[in-house]
Amino acid sequence: MRTSIATVSLSGTLTEKLTAAARAGFDGVEIFENDLIGSPLGPEEIRERAGDLGLTIDLFQPMRDIEAVPADEFARNLRRAEHKFRLMRRLGADTVLVCSSVSPYAVDDDALAAEQLRRLADLAQEHGIRVAYEALAWGRHVSTYEHAWRIVEAADHPALGICLDSFHILARGSDVAGIEDIPGEKIFFLQLADAPQMALDVLQWSRHHRCFPGQGDLDVAGLVRAAVRAGYDGPLSLEVFNDVFRQADAGRTAVDARRSLTLLQEAAGLSAPPAPVVPTGFAFVEIATADTARITPLLTALGFSRTARHSGKPVDLWEQGEARVLVNTDTGSHRPDPSLTAVGLESPDPAGASARAESLLAPVLPRRRAPEDAPLDAVAAPDGTEFFFCATDRSGRAGWTGDFAPAPHTPGPIGITRVDHVALTQPWHHFDEATLFHRGVLGLRPHASVDLADPYGLLRSRAASNEEGTVRIALGVGASPTDPPARGGRPQHVALLTEDLVTTVRRAREAGARLLPVPANYYDDLAAHHTFAPGELETYRELGILYDRDEKGEFRHCYTVTTGRLFFELVERVAGYDGYGARNAAVRLAAQHALAE
Amino acid sequence: MRTSIATVSLSGTLTEKLTAAARAGFDGVEIFENDLIGSPLGPEEIRERAGDLGLTIDLFQPMRDIEAVPADEFARNLRRAEHKFRLMRRLGADTVLVCSSVSPYAVDDDALAAEQLRRLADLAQEHGIRVAYEALAWGRHVSTYEHAWRIVEAADHPALGICLDSFHILARGSDVAGIEDIPGEKIFFLQLADAPQMALDVLQWSRHHRCFPGQGDLDVAGLVRAAVRAGYDGPLSLEVFNDVFRQADAGRTAVDARRSLTLLQEAAGLSAPPAPVVPTGFAFVEIATADTARITPLLTALGFSRTARHSGKPVDLWEQGEARVLVNTDTGSHRPDPSLTAVGLESPDPAGASARAESLLAPVLPRRRAPEDAPLDAVAAPDGTEFFFCATDRSGRAGWTGDFAPAPHTPGPIGITRVDHVALTQPWHHFDEATLFHRGVLGLRPHASVDLADPYGLLRSRAASNEEGTVRIALGVGASPTDPPARGGRPQHVALLTEDLVTTVRRAREAGARLLPVPANYYDDLAAHHTFAPGELETYRELGILYDRDEKGEFRHCYTVTTGRLFFELVERVAGYDGYGARNAAVRLAAQHALAE
Repeated sequence: MRTSIATVSLSGTLTEKLTAAARAGFDGVEIFENDLIGSPLGPEEIRERAGDLGLTIDLFQPMRDIEAVPADEFARNLRRAEHKFRLMRRLGADTVLVCSSVSPYAVDDDALAAEQLRRLADLAQEHGIRVAYEALAWGRHVSTYEHAWRIVEAADHPALGICLDSFHILARGSDVAGIEDIPGEKIFFLQLADAPQMALDVLQWSRHHRCFPGQGDLDVAGLVRAAVRAGYDGPLSLEVFNDVFRQADAGRTAVDARRSLTLLQEAAGLSAPPAPVVPTGFAFVEIATADTARITPLLTALGFSRTARHSGKPVDLWEQGEARVLVNTDTGSHRPDPSLTAVGLESPDPAGASARAESLLAPVLPRRRAPEDAPLDAVAAPDGTEFFFCATDRSGRAGWTGDFAPAPHTPGPIGITRVDHVALTQPWHHFDEATLFHRGVLGLRPHASVDLADPYGLLRSRAASNEEGTVRIALGVGASPTDPPARGGRPQHVALLTEDLVTTVRRAREAGARLLPVPANYYDDLAAHHTFAPGELETYRELGILYDRDEKGEFRHCYTVTTGRLFFELVERVAGYDGYGARNAAVRLAAQHALAE
Repeated sequence: MRTSIATVSLSGTLTEKLTAAARAGFDGVEIFENDLIGSPLGPEEIRERAGDLGLTIDLFQPMRDIEAVPADEFARNLRRAEHKFRLMRRLGADTVLVCSSVSPYAVDDDALAAEQLRRLADLAQEHGIRVAYEALAWGRHVSTYEHAWRIVEAADHPALGICLDSFHILARGSDVAGIEDIPGEKIFFLQLADAPQMALDVLQWSRHHRCFPGQGDLDVAGLVRAAVRAGYDGPLSLEVFNDVFRQADAGRTAVDARRSLTLLQEAAGLSAPPAPVVPTGFAFVEIATADTARITPLLTALGFSRTARHSGKPVDLWEQGEARVLVNTDTGSHRPDPSLTAVGLESPDPAGASARAESLLAPVLPRRRAPEDAPLDAVAAPDGTEFFFCATDRSGRAGWTGDFAPAPHTPGPIGITRVDHVALTQPWHHFDEATLFHRGVLGLRPHASVDLADPYGLLRSRAASNEEGTVRIALGVGASPTDPPARGGRPQHVALLTEDLVTTVRRAREAGARLLPVPANYYDDLAAHHTFAPGELETYRELGILYDRDEKGEFRHCYTVTTGRLFFELVERVAGYDGYGARNAAVRLAAQHALAE
């Protein structure tokens, strides 16, 4: 189906909005009236600009407070409408959105509403325009699509149909089954938006917290299915009012929006992009650093051995169990400090994973870095992290490790078996985009979002994982676009799994690893909340181990100090504990701040 | 009464919080448990630090999910409580806050709740501790103060009383009259917070949107009056969970908090700081600029004449009607561009206005800049703007204009009569503080907050004025702490009043004033919405005049282009129009962006 986006969903001038929509691959736009009013371009110029960009103008919106009013008021409304119909002809838009009235003059009289809408449609028809009537969830007398349809049906005019808006319908909890009873040709337009579930006044909810389908909690796909079954064949159009999108770069937002529509069409069974390929594990993490002086002692103390060196690039492979760390010193000048730049995911079908990512507008990275390298499928995530789809040492495939020549090494493992999770800080304006990317492109399942209390603001964290828990990515975001004020952003981290944290930590400390000190008060609090085996709590206190428990099992974890933009976590999961120790995050964050000062 | 603040209301480490509270003049603090747990200081060290700062520790909080649970669960809770009581003795805190249970194990049994709270109080008493029981608005079975009091009364234990929290009580719309029926000595603690009225789930509302008394919509003063009438004589303590305060500088937040308590005590009739002195008009606005090359032609074109020069400083006085502009070239190097740095307010009692400001912790500026200058009372607002309290040319007082020597000038007025309003952009983290400052310190009345759609985010604007409308200050704030990304911040502006905008604008244009171009689409929209006298709309279109109408009258206005961090607005108010043309703001903002590119 054709795709469209309302200009109000994007930031910037009308010209910037049109350009962003076209570049992201939309077929058309809805022109939001205020974007036109504020533009120095006249209607004809806007029409021409859109045409040059290959965009149709699918809707002009909104027209408000038209119907069910006293005659003199309605005469003024018709006069206003005629002005707008003339404007629409200059603009080349043939459908106008009319929202159900919120006017204090409106009366609760469906027959009057139908008659006045019919007269409006008569006038529209003279100008070659169709009127799409939409029930606002907070409309004064008309607030459901069923009610709006009864009025449109009663008006019975060929230039009058309804507009269905997923937010207005789903926010009220309406049953979408009734949509299938509406003749498809009378559904003039379909506006789509999702939203997180909130117990908030619906007007405020709508104006500030809408998001793209798949980023919230509403069943937008179910509504689309119902509309298509009814026979709707117009565009799928996004109309999102969101305080963050208003500030974000229009080009990025448009790509995020277009990706959400592809996923929505897939969910609604309307199209079939390449199937998701869920990763099965971590192949590697890659750390970039201008020199290895800080990272080498840390990896060594954590029991890693430098097992191989890339044949053509300054990249070392460090290994322990199934945990692999690439250290890349070819960083250019902009990343002098150790930072996490890439993640290798074990994929049952790297080419398939890459094809899906490409179909979902993820920037695909060059497959080979050098002619002699094994081809590697890779994409860039919204935060710039590079994700490689790997098939490590599987027969019949070119393994990425083939590019590495073994180096002599002394194994000194301390019990780390594999990477448990990586924690990636997201750009503040793109957190919803990141969640959708990890779900839609990488095939991971997002978990609930949690607030973490940092001394200088509330952080948000949301994990995404595969079903087995062998790939876990924690997406974090700061308290505001200015968090943290220091350059470089909040650190990322790599969590390494061990089956015996106490032993692993003792060995790491003996080998010289610097671990994050944990305040004594934390252990007093643990003692108040739990009973422990004799000596257990003392061991945690001695080693700086944090502790958590959920309904399934236990979690022990600790942190290295931060080096550059990176730190490591050591974790032990007992009996199926499935979380990330969120209750300990405030203590960890406070300790990190204390150390940074 | 003594004043206190919960550490959770301030950002930073526990040490930073204590220091900020002490510097702002609080007598005590509530220690929020997580702040203690995350601190590297032990309880004894925290006690000592607070003592050194002159702070008492008035409350330790919170203890959760204690009461009305099965016996084995209660035994675990008592064990946990005993740990915390020992901690409190080390900390030197003698009152603990116990919140009504939200535990799934809690049962709806007041007798059991009373019995278990009595046993808790027994244990507390052994440690010399008092238990203050508080009804959370979202408590599982106990969610009102009346209910909490019935249980406390039934428990009948000297170490058990209640804690009243204004948010929990007022958010539910409870009647505070019942507070007066509680014996004062059984009200162990009073926690105070305000909040803007929101139709939001009460838990989210409480956790993210509380603010200091006077910054929201709740009648906190009425609750305080009731508690005092009941005989409460403990501290007035602020407990505010606010996403913005968590990010803001603790020192500034603490001052804002302490100011709010002074105003609250005044509103509750508990204290009488120097009375507010409401300003009656604008004496002047002061523009700082390194050189006058840009501002001189603009002021000249707007019909101002340079009438005088300061006898001791490089400051020129420009006048037209009652509008006065000081141009100060003594700017240092940090403000090279024209910017609005100070506002003179006509005050019936400059010394009284200054005394009130000082009692409300406003930074008072040196009264004389040079020995020969007339003494001037002045304070700094939260955004750094200097407010001078003036008595221009009134007999018996040293007028500030006496410092100026008349300069020869050719009068060329174009109809400007006085300053209508000034628009000041506030630092993002301090918007609520600014509103309270303008109300409490300057004696202005805040109006409703409005959202303005900028192409790159929603701005917020809130005006404050005196009753006559002769002093109007529009406080604005950007969409986020990073808005705008460019250095220097959003421009401020000065609005100048005329009784005939069309004539004034024609003359200004003839004199070379550069006015902001307004898109043609705007006038097409005006034509759709209103009918005008013949030629009227064409004149607006020709001159770039914007138009608005409210229930009282009409508003015509236009803008100069921005120079440095400043622009001027020219306004005409017809028949008591009382707004600021908010409906035109989006067009103005879009036009300013277009011009800046």
